[in-house]
Amino acid sequence: MKADARADSLNPRRLGIDTHQEPVVYMRADCHVCRSEGFAAHSRVEVRLGGRSITATLNVVHGELLGEDEVGFSEAAWQLLQPQPSERARFAHPVPVDSMSYVRAKVYNQRLAEPQLNAIISDVVANRYTDVELAAFIASCADGRLSRAEITSLTRAMVNAGERLTWPYDRVMDKHCVGGLAGNRTTMILVPIAACLGLIMPKTSSRAITSPSGTADTMETLAPVDLSLDTLRAVVEREGACIAWGGAIHLSPADDILVRVERALDLDSEGQLVASVLSKKSAAGSTHVVLDLPVGPTAKVRSQHAALGLQRLLEQTARAIGLKVKTLVTDGRQPVGRGVGPALEARDVLAVLRNEPGAPQDLRAHSLDIAAALVELAEVARGDEARSLVTAVLQDGRALAKLEAICDAQGGMRQPPVATHTHDVAAMHAGRITAIDNRLLSRAAKLAGAPHAKAAGLELLVRLDERVSRGQPLFRLHAENAGDLDYALEFVQRHPGVVQLERH
Amino acid sequence: MKADARADSLNPRRLGIDTHQEPVVYMRADCHVCRSEGFAAHSRVEVRLGGRSITATLNVVHGELLGEDEVGFSEAAWQLLQPQPSERARFAHPVPVDSMSYVRAKVYNQRLAEPQLNAIISDVVANRYTDVELAAFIASCADGRLSRAEITSLTRAMVNAGERLTWPYDRVMDKHCVGGLAGNRTTMILVPIAACLGLIMPKTSSRAITSPSGTADTMETLAPVDLSLDTLRAVVEREGACIAWGGAIHLSPADDILVRVERALDLDSEGQLVASVLSKKSAAGSTHVVLDLPVGPTAKVRSQHAALGLQRLLEQTARAIGLKVKTLVTDGRQPVGRGVGPALEARDVLAVLRNEPGAPQDLRAHSLDIAAALVELAEVARGDEARSLVTAVLQDGRALAKLEAICDAQGGMRQPPVATHTHDVAAMHAGRITAIDNRLLSRAAKLAGAPHAKAAGLELLVRLDERVSRGQPLFRLHAENAGDLDYALEFVQRHPGVVQLERH
Repeated sequence: MKADARADSLNPRRLGIDTHQEPVVYMRADCHVCRSEGFAAHSRVEVRLGGRSITATLNVVHGELLGEDEVGFSEAAWQLLQPQPSERARFAHPVPVDSMSYVRAKVYNQRLAEPQLNAIISDVVANRYTDVELAAFIASCADGRLSRAEITSLTRAMVNAGERLTWPYDRVMDKHCVGGLAGNRTTMILVPIAACLGLIMPKTSSRAITSPSGTADTMETLAPVDLSLDTLRAVVEREGACIAWGGAIHLSPADDILVRVERALDLDSEGQLVASVLSKKSAAGSTHVVLDLPVGPTAKVRSQHAALGLQRLLEQTARAIGLKVKTLVTDGRQPVGRGVGPALEARDVLAVLRNEPGAPQDLRAHSLDIAAALVELAEVARGDEARSLVTAVLQDGRALAKLEAICDAQGGMRQPPVATHTHDVAAMHAGRITAIDNRLLSRAAKLAGAPHAKAAGLELLVRLDERVSRGQPLFRLHAENAGDLDYALEFVQRHPGVVQLERH
Repeated sequence: MKADARADSLNPRRLGIDTHQEPVVYMRADCHVCRSEGFAAHSRVEVRLGGRSITATLNVVHGELLGEDEVGFSEAAWQLLQPQPSERARFAHPVPVDSMSYVRAKVYNQRLAEPQLNAIISDVVANRYTDVELAAFIASCADGRLSRAEITSLTRAMVNAGERLTWPYDRVMDKHCVGGLAGNRTTMILVPIAACLGLIMPKTSSRAITSPSGTADTMETLAPVDLSLDTLRAVVEREGACIAWGGAIHLSPADDILVRVERALDLDSEGQLVASVLSKKSAAGSTHVVLDLPVGPTAKVRSQHAALGLQRLLEQTARAIGLKVKTLVTDGRQPVGRGVGPALEARDVLAVLRNEPGAPQDLRAHSLDIAAALVELAEVARGDEARSLVTAVLQDGRALAKLEAICDAQGGMRQPPVATHTHDVAAMHAGRITAIDNRLLSRAAKLAGAPHAKAAGLELLVRLDERVSRGQPLFRLHAENAGDLDYALEFVQRHPGVVQLERH
């Protein structure tokens, strides 16, 4: 055995493998580090590089994928460690994650105190938990096994585990939709309305993760959204509001990690949901938040009863962490607005702000409801007066001018792109629209190219309960090339349930 | 877009990446399948090849690791699908795993009926569950949330989900140790004893997973253990017993999958443990089983109280599925025998069977205890008479002759190899031995090369409570080459707690 083969370091190589958030390192089975440390496939290993370190999952490689002196990094591992030229990686058995003993205690239905939840969340954010451990934590918190005190502690722990914005204003307004509906771009309408009425609303939104568009994607068809914190502050100072992408600012990073595993399990623990929503808002420095809970068979909240329970829990926890909230339980049986996809949604938003006769009235009404709730929550006005105020600034064009000003401040307004290829999907027979499947609709829009292709997606041409004749267009697919249009068309032909039609 | 790029298939390529049991496929982000199906990193995909299909996790590859028309397979995916030349892989979104709704019900603390547990276990065995989903199932079963009826149903479901052996004998004897102790190779002593007394004992054992040796690894230093089912039956017919590797026969395959995730979580749910142990025995066609529960601080069962609870649950469940069991709660405070590693353990076994004066007495006594329990359980004899019978066949050499005959029947007896390199680790000061850490001991033996290097491991030269003088050897490392010996030595120098010594 040569002396240099004993060295306990390897040369990092970026393999370009995207394992989603989980950092993975790849080592040859016969490499000296694997052998001397007794690592095997699926071992957890601590990887050190320069002064940085992460815990990663090991995949063992047989054959010539890697050189003898190399360690492969997945994209997540590469981005966390950012190897510099000539830096070598060192490896060790990871220190056991102490806070997993609290997770095991929770699995055994014990109550956790705030320091224990803090310890869990810090380790989650430091990427010390495997997906399997996260799943055990999430399962242990379901079925009402988190007490109200634990939900409050969890929310605070999630706020504390990331960056936190502060603002030099008494009232910082925000809104959140506990969602799952396609379309529904109320934010871009109600933020300018609120700003016109003197409210401060530094709105940060997400990009699409599994949906055809996030608010940040839609806004990006009108103006830049990837703002530095300084720019974001300058925009808010000038216009009273912004609509920016929140991803660059690390607010409640634990939430992103937990949500991914919750989604994989299709498990919505009420306690986790409450902590997730409120921690993001609190970390963003918001003080007053309107929460929109759409209820419908393909929305996140499926019954009125569930909505009321969730509403109570949200309000209690918000009070405990010092947030003022107002909750609206709304109709979530179908998409809000017509467009699904970045540019198509932006066109809906502009149509409402421009008071066009053909503008989607459901999107207009829903935006006004939330805007009025914000005005009430901020104690600017109440009831009919609040409603009149928000309607007036929309009708007289001030809200449109404000959105334009916000876009200018964010870097300049632009026109949303228009798709080069469209295709109408028509009713096979006459009938009444009985259901619109949010999930299939989203899949079709994504196959057409959304959100990557900004102009792509679909336009819904009918509403629930509407009567249609044979051959009448139900929705229009938009794509930026013929291939994408074909993919989407093939999908909707295989899935006739996107829009459900009952014969007369 | 070219017509052939629309084809929905890719050319499989073995990447040699060992992801442990989880099948992973690797696709280029820009490949036509990813785009048309809307797959993203961490998607679950159904992979079809020939008439076979599996559900796998997708990793997305950027760059040139794969050709445009290629899909990479992890080792697990390759072994499950075994692509033949010119076969192309096709892909689809997997059908949702219906039984996950029962797991979610269990997370919400509902009782599951046998058909629901059957559905879960069938899907687990068909590899339809992700690790995250398995973790949720395991967590939901902890804290006594499995009723006695559910444990019985789960055990039956695990038996039914794999192959099942049948034997033309009324009584088929077996034993199992709920373990965690190094050494402890009683099987190779008590099986020949039992066979000498006319008991039928077709013993299947496992290889090491995380330990320095499994019973199958130790037996393999004396005779072949990788027997076909026909050979195994022929050995049992001729000698009344065998000691074979159970891995080639797929008994209770769900257990292997669940145990891996339980180990990752360090969560021992009593219900899962009972189902795991009893399903393996029932699937092996055993009718009478002696269960050994060693209790100690670094063993699996840590207190007398826990042992009694587990004993009750094992006995109740065994009765419900028609197994006769007898449980022994034993001393698990230190390894049983001296050797740790395949050949070293085999030498202990042979020393006991040969009645050598220096043979490890604890291993001898422990083996006789279990053998006597087997004799009682089979109703051949009771109490002192059972003890006399088993002691006699050991002392007069019949048990040794029987092991030799079993080895011959399995393909021919051989001598265990002897290590070329040894090193004694000595006491740094005089004192009394207060603890022996099973886990550190196992790590040291593995670094010395066990179980891959058959002669490697370590030999414990002292016992608990023994007084030693300064410089007296505590244990001897055995290795097949100088490099491995150095690794192990370096480790024990960094971890002086392998054997703990209290000054006089």
